[in-house]
Amino acid sequence: MIALSYVKSLFTRPGPMLRKPGMQKSSRITLSDVAKAAGVSPITVSRALRNPAMVSADARARIDRAIARLGYVPNPAARALASGRTDVVGVIIPSVSNNVFTDVIRGIQDGLQGSGLSVQLAMTGYSPLEEERLVRVFLTQQPAGLILTGHEQSPAAQALLRGAGFPVVQLMEVGPEPLDVAIGLSHFDGARDAARHLLDRGYRVPAFLGAQMDPRSQRRLAGFRDAMAGSGRDAPPVVTTPEPSSVSLGCRMFADLIARHPSVDAVLCNNDDLALGVLFEARRRNIDVPGRLGICGFNDLEVMQAAAPSLTSVHTDRYRMGQLAVRQVLDRLKGGGHPRGTSIDIGFELRARESTAGRAG
Amino acid sequence: MIALSYVKSLFTRPGPMLRKPGMQKSSRITLSDVAKAAGVSPITVSRALRNPAMVSADARARIDRAIARLGYVPNPAARALASGRTDVVGVIIPSVSNNVFTDVIRGIQDGLQGSGLSVQLAMTGYSPLEEERLVRVFLTQQPAGLILTGHEQSPAAQALLRGAGFPVVQLMEVGPEPLDVAIGLSHFDGARDAARHLLDRGYRVPAFLGAQMDPRSQRRLAGFRDAMAGSGRDAPPVVTTPEPSSVSLGCRMFADLIARHPSVDAVLCNNDDLALGVLFEARRRNIDVPGRLGICGFNDLEVMQAAAPSLTSVHTDRYRMGQLAVRQVLDRLKGGGHPRGTSIDIGFELRARESTAGRAG
Repeated sequence: MIALSYVKSLFTRPGPMLRKPGMQKSSRITLSDVAKAAGVSPITVSRALRNPAMVSADARARIDRAIARLGYVPNPAARALASGRTDVVGVIIPSVSNNVFTDVIRGIQDGLQGSGLSVQLAMTGYSPLEEERLVRVFLTQQPAGLILTGHEQSPAAQALLRGAGFPVVQLMEVGPEPLDVAIGLSHFDGARDAARHLLDRGYRVPAFLGAQMDPRSQRRLAGFRDAMAGSGRDAPPVVTTPEPSSVSLGCRMFADLIARHPSVDAVLCNNDDLALGVLFEARRRNIDVPGRLGICGFNDLEVMQAAAPSLTSVHTDRYRMGQLAVRQVLDRLKGGGHPRGTSIDIGFELRARESTAGRAG
Repeated sequence: MIALSYVKSLFTRPGPMLRKPGMQKSSRITLSDVAKAAGVSPITVSRALRNPAMVSADARARIDRAIARLGYVPNPAARALASGRTDVVGVIIPSVSNNVFTDVIRGIQDGLQGSGLSVQLAMTGYSPLEEERLVRVFLTQQPAGLILTGHEQSPAAQALLRGAGFPVVQLMEVGPEPLDVAIGLSHFDGARDAARHLLDRGYRVPAFLGAQMDPRSQRRLAGFRDAMAGSGRDAPPVVTTPEPSSVSLGCRMFADLIARHPSVDAVLCNNDDLALGVLFEARRRNIDVPGRLGICGFNDLEVMQAAAPSLTSVHTDRYRMGQLAVRQVLDRLKGGGHPRGTSIDIGFELRARESTAGRAG
């Protein structure tokens, strides 16, 4: 109630600083004006704005009409000042062009349903410096929680986040000591298991194709090398590029790979876009998949099981990671949640399909 | 300068409302404390926070270190109250799972580079009611501008947006009177031209496959029907579903289509995911593409030209739409920009590829 009164006094303050160019009139409309016009009490209007489920549908409709007619704009800046916290969960990901992260976002969004919190999404373009800048932006906004990708934040960003005062979740990987809580999987183990699968199916010269070599892709490459070394293959063919990943790039990289290493008979790709490109390029060159070439991706996007032949991949549950991250933020806000320092390994699953059914001859 | 002083007085106000649970200490750190610790004037700290380019790299580094050491959190809520506007461009899209919108977002992000504004992204899940709720949320945040998808906003959302007091851009389509400015293309014309292309290439029984039948997909279907009626085909085969689109769904829908209409020899899909699914399902059934079946998608995602055979699609420049939307917001903030009521048609281009090279026999 004290917070509410404070908010109301800010709403009704007539000072010049609250006026917005071109909106002088509506800035002076108060919550009480809305209440009068809607025929309800001011506290009912407050409730309708803060927690609509507490107000009847009829009253909500009248309040909505009054707000629209009067041009009333409740001010979250005032509310944030009063409560010391905004109703936003910040999410920092590298890119929305990568379907892996869109699944994470779906999980976060669905997890927030009914919580009254909304997502603010920001993208780093895979730049740690941009990530640091975004961390500063979010810190100034006092979000309910912040969800980040991976654990390669800059030292300055890490220092800021350790003192953040709100729950922080690092997604996608488990690894060294988390800033607060980490939820993910071992990309090294996933790629190592996939490489062993190729060897188990009789492929003799597996190669690795990697684009957009972010930290997780680097660890996948290390897992591939580990499996190869374990089978006596000390210098397996590897082609990588910092270019953003795409299906077209998969085509070009595979063409480059077999020009340089004609004996390659299997490809582990650091993601599914590349694997799809390899499949198309193999088809253009009449290279039989899986008899002459085995193909394995990473993440198991929806297209992998639909492809013809269907494509093997390392399945990661991005949706669940997003949901678990939100649950951690919400639990922590209620005083519970996993304690600082917790790493949650959600694992992965190799989904073997037609594209790695085995080498012919 | 007045605005700045006001912000500073809010920062330093010692009242209990500014205290945040668990952060009592850092909440009392003032901008002046940071200035003293960094050996600069308070106005330099203000500038570093509001417009870093105005401050030397050396001073910025000292200020950053002081902020990190003291745990100072500048308060954007206070800044928003003072300036009457936040540094955010709101973007409301149906879903990030649709690659079409991720290209739009890339265009928006790149367009905002260096502007000092950042994107706040929200998703409707294709629900007009959720869109209306999000419009209300954004209105309370006084964004620098708001970018929406399509022109099917609810009547209440439209009323709110017409009185918004900040620039509004409706993306993806041109159609009826825009709320402010609309940037897009005619989805009806795009699908009509694609259907005519199939007829021109000798396909006799083109069908339409549509998933996630949002307003733009409805207009594509209408364009398809128009072209078919123009060639004397009054009841062409049409299969649609409200399900979200996916490659797997394209496989299933095509299987359903040819079971019901075995004479179909071409498919216009309302998006590229479905077209890719049709290609894979045709391959599984040994149906020759393009000799026995022509396939055309819509939007021309990157995978279309990489596929084997390469897939025909209606190319739309989503990245450019995002860039133009941002330019409109920025120009309007500077007092320029297109006047209210402007619709900008950026057109489309049919990219004919191997998948519609012509019917055999």
